[in-house]
Amino acid sequence: MASKLLVDIHTHVYLPRYAALLRSRSAVPFIHHEPSGGRPVGPQYWDREEKLRFMDKHGIDVSVVSTANPWLDFLPPAQALTLATELNEDLEGYCSTSPNVPDVPIKRLYGFGLLPLVPEITTASLLDTVKQISKLPHLRGLIMGTRGVGKGLDDEALDPVWAAIEEAGLVVFIHPHYGVDVKAWGDKDNGHVLPLALGFPFETTTAATRLILSGVFDRYPNLRLLLAHSGGALPQLSSRLASCIDHDPVVASRLKHDARYYLGKLYLDAVAYGPEELGFVSDVIARSARYEAGASVAEAANRSLGSQRMLFGTDHPFFPPLSSTQKWKSVVENLEAIDAVQGWTQADKDGVCGGNAVSLFNLVQ
Amino acid sequence: MASKLLVDIHTHVYLPRYAALLRSRSAVPFIHHEPSGGRPVGPQYWDREEKLRFMDKHGIDVSVVSTANPWLDFLPPAQALTLATELNEDLEGYCSTSPNVPDVPIKRLYGFGLLPLVPEITTASLLDTVKQISKLPHLRGLIMGTRGVGKGLDDEALDPVWAAIEEAGLVVFIHPHYGVDVKAWGDKDNGHVLPLALGFPFETTTAATRLILSGVFDRYPNLRLLLAHSGGALPQLSSRLASCIDHDPVVASRLKHDARYYLGKLYLDAVAYGPEELGFVSDVIARSARYEAGASVAEAANRSLGSQRMLFGTDHPFFPPLSSTQKWKSVVENLEAIDAVQGWTQADKDGVCGGNAVSLFNLVQ
Repeated sequence: MASKLLVDIHTHVYLPRYAALLRSRSAVPFIHHEPSGGRPVGPQYWDREEKLRFMDKHGIDVSVVSTANPWLDFLPPAQALTLATELNEDLEGYCSTSPNVPDVPIKRLYGFGLLPLVPEITTASLLDTVKQISKLPHLRGLIMGTRGVGKGLDDEALDPVWAAIEEAGLVVFIHPHYGVDVKAWGDKDNGHVLPLALGFPFETTTAATRLILSGVFDRYPNLRLLLAHSGGALPQLSSRLASCIDHDPVVASRLKHDARYYLGKLYLDAVAYGPEELGFVSDVIARSARYEAGASVAEAANRSLGSQRMLFGTDHPFFPPLSSTQKWKSVVENLEAIDAVQGWTQADKDGVCGGNAVSLFNLVQ
Repeated sequence: MASKLLVDIHTHVYLPRYAALLRSRSAVPFIHHEPSGGRPVGPQYWDREEKLRFMDKHGIDVSVVSTANPWLDFLPPAQALTLATELNEDLEGYCSTSPNVPDVPIKRLYGFGLLPLVPEITTASLLDTVKQISKLPHLRGLIMGTRGVGKGLDDEALDPVWAAIEEAGLVVFIHPHYGVDVKAWGDKDNGHVLPLALGFPFETTTAATRLILSGVFDRYPNLRLLLAHSGGALPQLSSRLASCIDHDPVVASRLKHDARYYLGKLYLDAVAYGPEELGFVSDVIARSARYEAGASVAEAANRSLGSQRMLFGTDHPFFPPLSSTQKWKSVVENLEAIDAVQGWTQADKDGVCGGNAVSLFNLVQ
């Protein structure tokens, strides 16, 4: 039964306490009272009933909800710590009081907590928050951006945090916010297309690559990192990355494995909108074994096995439909893409739709 | 016979006249007389005998050679025009006096010319240079970076240039140089790994996406653009791009087709270092037909057909081996990757290795 659940692991919320903070601000980030250039922000961002209605409309049984970007990045350390602690409690309440899935002893909502990842925060504050999250029964991981405590995720200052997260068995959802320098997009008005379609995945790709290069996966081999948007461009650039490392003996000597090995240690959401992308991502995960076992490049990657680290997501409440009565095209497209992947069995597809999330987040005990 | 040739379409040269200019400069870009932090630059960059020896070592029959970045981007317009004209003549001589391929009535060297693509250049100068290139018999295309005449390739100022290039039937090789803002790479010393492995492909992806969004492919449907490094990350981000466009009615209304359609109008080199990447790229090219014909997403992309727009390349003289007696790992890896692609027939592989280049560049008449 649980193997047939549809579980959305990429779905965001601005909890009321967080939305109120954004509403009280006059500098970015803030919520406009009236639409005036910013993204329209409405109750779908904070109202749990809206989330459940969205889930019902698309047949989603369970959502593992995360605070949307920019999280707490803009706050001073004391306020970030207080708010992280409060928002984690809030999210626990949001989930624990949600309805059960009919006939399955689980809730419809689980969550990713927040750490106060801002400059000048103490390691103790970060570790205390990891501990808090690990004790809240409906939080099963945490979401973070790519800046860490200011210098990125490859900063050794985070090593005690990775160690604590690994020990606690929490899943880390790595999600973009900053993109790249807007000068890359040129003078033309293309709306938000370039920063969303390219800037977000570039940022995730860079963060994950810097993590690989820093040896975090060698030091914390049981760390469970989930990358947004199917890892951005990391899968397509991973053999190029391996080649560039190969040609730099200093960098190469720091790593235990070929760069492609580490992609098999990751979890990637299935938010890529096309079946060819999803099939390819599963190939790239599966070929990790080649770089562990010394198999030949001529041996086909076991795409079916690779699918076991991929998880359905919607990116709700972003990418809403142009008309409010429709199903969301962004959701329908991702489900159709999963269904159309060549070489995935029905069991693989069921896994990507929910079974893998049930295992990863230990939803059915 | 010609269908079995190994043709390298991604291979660079600093012609002696260009190397001399770089050597005379004390500001970037310049060539150091002694290694002092810059990339080591030696005769493999300008000596044609070195290029031919490299080709012999790896069984490469024909190379379609291009000036390496940063081309003429740093020059004032008058000097850029003079030098483009001279370098095109130089490259014609470099190719026309090269040996023949045994038993096939073609030369071993062909070339991509240069346009004086710098700010404040006149359109007439650009069009004159397109005409010059089209009349030089061993030049079969031109290489360009991503800045155009200063505002990128989506600048309408380039429309007469695209029209002239399309009319002349020249292939445009689009190649990165600038990457993205170095702040993305953080404080750690990772050598050149991040700008090369990620920055280069991000730049190509952005340039190609901006071209799609600008409608260049709708206005010049017979333009033949070849993207370096298998299009960077464009294949993996193309369905996300299509979704982002779908959700922006203003941008969507400017384009005749789904974004994924345009990938099937491109040519992509096979410089991606892994068989999974190459297979995926061929899927993405092939599925273009789906967005022309309205076929279902459930229909498998014809990977074999997609391979016909992919072309072997080496990136010589970059990525040299750590020891000078070896075959180049970067070359061997790309050849092994082509050979290992699942779903490509031997004829497809022969096409990627050379047959597609013979057709695209009209090498055997």
